[in-house]
Amino acid sequence: MDNREISQAVIGRLPRYFRYLGELKDEGIERISSQELSDIMKVTASQIRQDFNNFGGFGQQGYGYKVEYLYEEIGRILGLNKSHHLIIIGAGNLGQALANYMNFERRGFLFKGIFDKNPALYGTRIRNMRIRPMDEMETFVRESGIDIAVLTIPKTEAVAVAERLVEAGIRGIWNFAHVDLNVPEEIQVENVHLSDSLMKLTYNISRFENGEG
Amino acid sequence: MDNREISQAVIGRLPRYFRYLGELKDEGIERISSQELSDIMKVTASQIRQDFNNFGGFGQQGYGYKVEYLYEEIGRILGLNKSHHLIIIGAGNLGQALANYMNFERRGFLFKGIFDKNPALYGTRIRNMRIRPMDEMETFVRESGIDIAVLTIPKTEAVAVAERLVEAGIRGIWNFAHVDLNVPEEIQVENVHLSDSLMKLTYNISRFENGEG
Repeated sequence: MDNREISQAVIGRLPRYFRYLGELKDEGIERISSQELSDIMKVTASQIRQDFNNFGGFGQQGYGYKVEYLYEEIGRILGLNKSHHLIIIGAGNLGQALANYMNFERRGFLFKGIFDKNPALYGTRIRNMRIRPMDEMETFVRESGIDIAVLTIPKTEAVAVAERLVEAGIRGIWNFAHVDLNVPEEIQVENVHLSDSLMKLTYNISRFENGEG
Repeated sequence: MDNREISQAVIGRLPRYFRYLGELKDEGIERISSQELSDIMKVTASQIRQDFNNFGGFGQQGYGYKVEYLYEEIGRILGLNKSHHLIIIGAGNLGQALANYMNFERRGFLFKGIFDKNPALYGTRIRNMRIRPMDEMETFVRESGIDIAVLTIPKTEAVAVAERLVEAGIRGIWNFAHVDLNVPEEIQVENVHLSDSLMKLTYNISRFENGEG
């Protein structure tokens, strides 16, 4: 399958389809039409068909989609048919919250280790894993087949740590540091800039309050 | 100013401009051309000019933008000239991480309280604020002029809690629960679906590994 032309906008919508289909599957629903899916997801049926057509369409017109098949296929497209080995860099509040966010494991995200530069934390265990010093990071990535690193460190440190991770062979970085990383094209980066998201919220609040909503 | 036609895509880029301009300001830089801004932000100068034209342009062609003025103006558009009063619903790992994320206060986001349904937590203090029971929530929202609620509770509870918040007069919800909320149009919702973001990352990793990057 050639995904080259699929826009990041379409990709951005796939996890939401995956989530709704997972819920339908859990409810024991076997088939759903694009119109029914449209009603519960509040996107147009035409948008759904267009999105799915990027991947060959998945279903029979007028007969509906097989929920489980569609769920599995979208999961496969999202790379969830393979397990992913994660480490977290930064054992502060956010790093610990993500380490404890067990829900990720159901999807094949395996939490393998957590690192921090603060020696006072080295004895501490999070989900039965000791917090490791930063100078073990590269060896750990190489020897444990880590493909994803989660960065929950201050922005002043994130750029240099990202370079070390790339050097050690990481494939993807889930970046919570409030800085844009500069990594080679073949390294995938997904940014979660929390305060950017909060500002979008206040923009929409203040626009509404100014009667422009 | 009439913002009605400004797309959420443009709005989504404003916080990033704001972040870069804040850094330039901190470095003491007074003026910057769209070309220089383009170089450091890695977007085209034409994109920058187009984005800024949505708000009247901000600057003089060929003379560059005044950094501090631009920073203040974008902050004002983002609603950061007013302070916002936040409460967090859910004192789990993520809720506590966000409560401790002091960086938000610099931007006028004032953390006013944290709520949980677990009575075992009621004695605990986070940033010198006691964790409150859920049945105090509505009164607190009304009496303390809370405009933003942050939801870090399980998706099974989020929909009902959002309805209670709306009833109590909340203006915006920053939603970390993994569910789409169904609130009236005048209530602004900004979703942070962490596992959706992680799936976008694995999509891009697996696409690259299949030689389609």
